[in-house]
Formats: sequence, structure tokens, C-alpha cells
Amino acid sequence: MTKGRLEAFSDGVLAIIITIMVLELKVPEGSSWISLKPLIPKFLAYIFSFIYVGIYWNNHHHLFQTVKKVNGGILWANLHLLFWLSMMPIATEWIGTTGFAENPVATYGIVLVLCAIAYSILENVIIRCEGENSKLKEAIHSKNKENISIIFYILGIATSFFYPYIAIGFYYIVALIWLIPDRRIEKSLKDN
Amino acid sequence: MTKGRLEAFSDGVLAIIITIMVLELKVPEGSSWISLKPLIPKFLAYIFSFIYVGIYWNNHHHLFQTVKKVNGGILWANLHLLFWLSMMPIATEWIGTTGFAENPVATYGIVLVLCAIAYSILENVIIRCEGENSKLKEAIHSKNKENISIIFYILGIATSFFYPYIAIGFYYIVALIWLIPDRRIEKSLKDN
Amino acid sequence: MTKGRLEAFSDGVLAIIITIMVLELKVPEGSSWISLKPLIPKFLAYIFSFIYVGIYWNNHHHLFQTVKKVNGGILWANLHLLFWLSMMPIATEWIGTTGFAENPVATYGIVLVLCAIAYSILENVIIRCEGENSKLKEAIHSKNKENISIIFYILGIATSFFYPYIAIGFYYIVALIWLIPDRRIEKSLKDN
Amino acid sequence: MTKGRLEAFSDGVLAIIITIMVLELKVPEGSSWISLKPLIPKFLAYIFSFIYVGIYWNNHHHLFQTVKKVNGGILWANLHLLFWLSMMPIATEWIGTTGFAENPVATYGIVLVLCAIAYSILENVIIRCEGENSKLKEAIHSKNKENISIIFYILGIATSFFYPYIAIGFYYIVALIWLIPDRRIEKSLKDN
Repeated sequence: MTKGRLEAFSDGVLAIIITIMVLELKVPEGSSWISLKPLIPKFLAYIFSFIYVGIYWNNHHHLFQTVKKVNGGILWANLHLLFWLSMMPIATEWIGTTGFAENPVATYGIVLVLCAIAYSILENVIIRCEGENSKLKEAIHSKNKENISIIFYILGIATSFFYPYIAIGFYYIVALIWLIPDRRIEKSLKDN
Repeated sequence: MTKGRLEAFSDGVLAIIITIMVLELKVPEGSSWISLKPLIPKFLAYIFSFIYVGIYWNNHHHLFQTVKKVNGGILWANLHLLFWLSMMPIATEWIGTTGFAENPVATYGIVLVLCAIAYSILENVIIRCEGENSKLKEAIHSKNKENISIIFYILGIATSFFYPYIAIGFYYIVALIWLIPDRRIEKSLKDN
Repeated sequence: MTKGRLEAFSDGVLAIIITIMVLELKVPEGSSWISLKPLIPKFLAYIFSFIYVGIYWNNHHHLFQTVKKVNGGILWANLHLLFWLSMMPIATEWIGTTGFAENPVATYGIVLVLCAIAYSILENVIIRCEGENSKLKEAIHSKNKENISIIFYILGIATSFFYPYIAIGFYYIVALIWLIPDRRIEKSLKDN
Repeated sequence: MTKGRLEAFSDGVLAIIITIMVLELKVPEGSSWISLKPLIPKFLAYIFSFIYVGIYWNNHHHLFQTVKKVNGGILWANLHLLFWLSMMPIATEWIGTTGFAENPVATYGIVLVLCAIAYSILENVIIRCEGENSKLKEAIHSKNKENISIIFYILGIATSFFYPYIAIGFYYIVALIWLIPDRRIEKSLKDN
């Protein structure tokens, strides 16, 4: 089986997830600048989630560069990742409407952890499918980046109940770590 | 005519169907955990339908692996399938908002039956188009899986008027049967 | 310039148009069968529009089979067609919520005429771009189907102010004429 | 890395942005013609934004014709452009619901400027990635069109606080300048 449709379907779902979040930015009642004020936390939350979905799209793109063919396991591991990513819009909206309140920020962190775990599972399923000579396995010797991310997410979730803005800071650091697409894969692809 | 655009269009529609269902998970008013409570049945219904649409996408993917070229009949049989699948979001929402009530669960079952029939029609139209040496015909000697599914759906619909949760159990069994993508097609493709 | 992205973008827009219409089928308040009653006209309108957008997708698919390369004129003629097709969801909703009232049915007919004209313009722009040996020109000697459609639409619009259901009948006849994808193009492609 | 998925993802996002704007055209309560009246400014705003997103899609299409391979920088510059384009629906809705009021028209202009800047950044990142022999650099000797556009946008924003309709006129002139897809790129592609 070829990977073409898996990529096309994932692109479609990610494009919808990233754009659906805009629907939450409801237009203000009046035309004064002050009427825009309640949009500010929603807008900040939108920027943040846009970057996160963008990161996942970039890394998904890199990940499947190494993949030659797909099987049933990869299809489902990919759908599992898309499922948790589809929780991003609602988590974003909860943050935005409550103005970065404690529980919503914690929930957002939980969604991020679940996405990270789903991504890691997808990597493992691909490596198992490819067997001994997996290019991906070669590219990701250690899962340092993945492990550090999960630690920061957990720190963020724990902090969110006391200082939600600091929690956002932790999530932000993980975003920065991943903003640069996976050089390990780019490097490995070049070497082969 | 090539199958490329039929696949791309179907991927697009399925990606939208699967993601539109998230829009029904309306964000709670407050930021307390209790305010999430009414979301629980909606969330369970979403998971269930996500898996079902995922199953259809997987099997659609497998089905068209065997197809070389398409004609007007296949285009319309495919649109017919997409039409019934597009009823999934509204059926899901009705289950979610009523908390798995009798009529909504029965309606959900009816939508599932109509999707299954539409899928079966699509299989038949493809086989008729390909003629004698149809790879798909070879792959699906018997339609056992299809027939068992319809029996379970009908059992589910009948049960739903008395015990909606048991009805969901019947639908769940069918999902498990199909969760494993169609090995018959994978096997047949390998043999050729 | 290749036609790949024009097809992909059109598939995306058409997939969204066809699926957005489902969002108008708002879930009933209660769980009784009677609560489904106001959905009936909306559901009928949805079926009708689904078929119409399906027809346009099929014919668009056929149309671009003959096209080798695209220019700026074709890009804009295509966007013009997509613009009028994007009016289908709102026209459908107006029919559905008013239960096939006079003005909405007339408006629906006007949208159908504008789509038909936009499609015809797209055909002409493609033929002009391809020049003398246009395969499409060969395929469509006469524009009988196009002309008959517009006559029926106008009859429908005129009738809609007195008997909206008869107007829908006229629109339905045009749908039947086009339901069979454009054999003229299929035949012409085979001959070459 | 190939550009295929970047194009597919961008097509998806642009298709959703262009179609989401239709959702703002809420169906009128009654079935009289007068009930359509509040839709008129929204409809005009929709046409305007449809053309603008169409222009960006056309130019994006032209831009990536020259690109052979993509890197992380291009992926992010492209996401940055998509982010500002995703602000179009909400800016359009604000114009439409307030009937072309001062602040909304100014905001619309600001969004247009930010899209133009993001497009310009994307061009620069592509040129830097391609290095000395960049086809795109050759095609765009001077950035006259880009610079004139930004001047007109700023004129529009300044005017919008006094005469919003004249501001729309300025934005309209820029649309006319770009309506014709980038001949510079078409010409350059032909020469090579």
C-alpha cells in the first residue's frame, strides 16, 4: 500500500483543525476598538495552537518522508494521533473563553501530552513495520526530544493549578524545541 | 478516467466529516471540572463515530487499491456512500445531546446500516465495471463480514428501543470486526 | 502550468460545500420521533443539493480530463464557478427553513442558472485556451444540454412564484439530464 | 523534501478559508425579499474577500511553480502566510455585520498589509533557499508590484477612519493590480 492517501487524508484533517479554530474568534457586536477586547485571550490562544498544529504538520511531513509503504497498524496509529490533535480546537477555545484559567490550561497540557504520546506510538509502529533497516530508527537514536517534552508538559500541568501563565511558559518551551523541524530525519535522509 | 480525483474528493469529504463532529463538543460555560460533565456523553459518541469513520476511510483506501479506472457508475456509487456517511455527524450529535436515548441510538443504527448497504453497492458496481477478472471479486469470495455486520446492526436497532447501551454494544462488535482492515484485499493484492 | 493544483483546490472547495450543508441539519431538542419533523424539508433540500453539487463535481472531473495545461484565464473562470457553487449551501438552507416557500425556491433557481452560466464560461475559456485542436470543442459540438438546462431553470424560476413544488420539479428534470456524466467527453476521449 | 505536501496542505487551508466565509451569510428569518436586505453588505464583503483569497491562491500557485524543493524555513514562512490569510474570514465578517464601518475597514486593511508582508517574506525565504541561480529572483527583478500594493493599503487604512468606502476603493485597486496572475513568473518559466 502506498502512503499517498494517508498523507492526503492527514493534510486534510490538519488543515481543517487549524482553520476551525478561527471560527471561535466570534466577531464583536459593535465596531469600536473596545469591543475587540474579549477577543484578545482567544486570539493569543489561537496563535499558540496554530503554532502547535503547524509543528505537528511539519514533523508529520518529515516523519513520512522516511516511510516507503504503510500497513493497517500505521493507518490506525496515524488516526489515533489525528484524534488527539482534533481535541486542540476545543481545548484552545476553553482557554480562550475563560482567559487562561487553571483547569482549562491543565486540560490543554493533558491534550498536548496525549498528542505527544500518540506521535511517539506512531514512530514506534513505523519502525516495527520497517524492521531491521528502518531509516527512521537510524534517524532517531535516542528519544531525548520526546522525553524532555513530556517532562515539560507534566511540569506545566502541575504548575497550571497555581500559576496558569507559567504553565503556558512550559508549553511554550516545548514548542520552541520542536519549532525547528526534525533535523535528525533531514540529516539521515541526506546521508542515505 | 483515473481514480486520483475520486480518492482526493473522498479523502476531503471524509476528513471534513470526521473533524466536523468536534464542532459539536461545545466548550463549557465555566472553568470548573463539573462544567465538563455534559460533555462526557458527547465525547464518548465522538470517539465511537471517529472510529467508525476511520474504519470506512481505511476500507475505502483498501477497496480502491484494487481499482484501476473508474466510470460514471463508480463515481455515483461512491457519492452515495459519502452521502450516508455525511449523516454520521448529526446522528452522533443526537446521541450525545440526549445521552444515548432510545430513538437516537436506533437512528444511529439505521445510518450505520445505510452506510453498510452503500458500501456493499459500491463493491458490486466496481466488480461489475471490472468484469470477469475483477481482482476485488477474487478478494471477496463471500460477503460473510458484510452479512454478519448487517445482522448485528439489525439486532442493535431492535434492542435500542429497550436497552440503548446494549444496542451500542452490538454496533461496537461490528466495529471490532472491521477494525482490522480488509485482509482479504491485502492478501489478494500480494498474490497477484 | 499543470492542472494538478487547480483540481486539488476545486476538490477541496467542493468537498467543503457538500459537507457544510450537513451543518444546517441541526439536531432536534428532544429524543422523540416528532422532534425530527422540522428536519424533513431541510433533509429533502440537502439531498437535492448534494445531488447537484455531485453533478458539478462529476462534470468538472470530466471537463478537466481533456485539459492538458491551464492559464490565468482558466484559473479565474474556475474560481468564478466555485463562487456560485458556494452559494448553494445558503440557498439550500433558505429553502429548508422556509419549507420550500416561493422566494427561496426562485432564489435557488437563480443560483442554479448562475452556476450553469459559470460552467459554460469555463468551457469556453478552456476551448479558447486550447485553440484550434481543442479536444473539448470536438466533444461538445452543440451546447444542447446546456441550453435546455437554462430554459428549464427559467421555467422553474417563473413557476416558483405560484407553485414552488412544480418549480422544484423543473430543477429536478435538469438534474436528471446531467446525472449521467458527460458521455460526449467520455466518447471523445476514447476516440483519440 | 518535495513540495507536494506543502501545496496540498496550503490548498486545503485556502479552500477552507474561502468556504468558511459563506457560513457567515446566515439565512434570513422570513421568506420575503426584504428579509434579504441585511445580507447585502455581508454578500459584498464576501465577494471582495473571495476575490482576495483567490488572488493569493493564484499567486501561491505561480510562486511554487518555480520551487523545486522545500526546507524548514519555507514550511514556516508558508504557515505564517496562511496564518494571516486565516484572519480574512473574521475581518470580512466584521465589515459585513457593521456595514463597512470605520474601524472594521481599517482592520481589514491591516490584515491585508500583514498578508502582503507575509507573502513578501515567503518570496525572500524561497530565494535565499534557492541561492544564486534562483528562478524566482530572476522573475522578480524589482518588487514594484509589492511596494505599490503596500502604499495603497496604507492609504486605504488612513482613509478608512474618515471615508470607509474610499478605503475599500484603495483595496480594490490593489486587487485589480494582482488579479492578473504574476506574468513575471509565467514569462520567466517560459524562457527557461
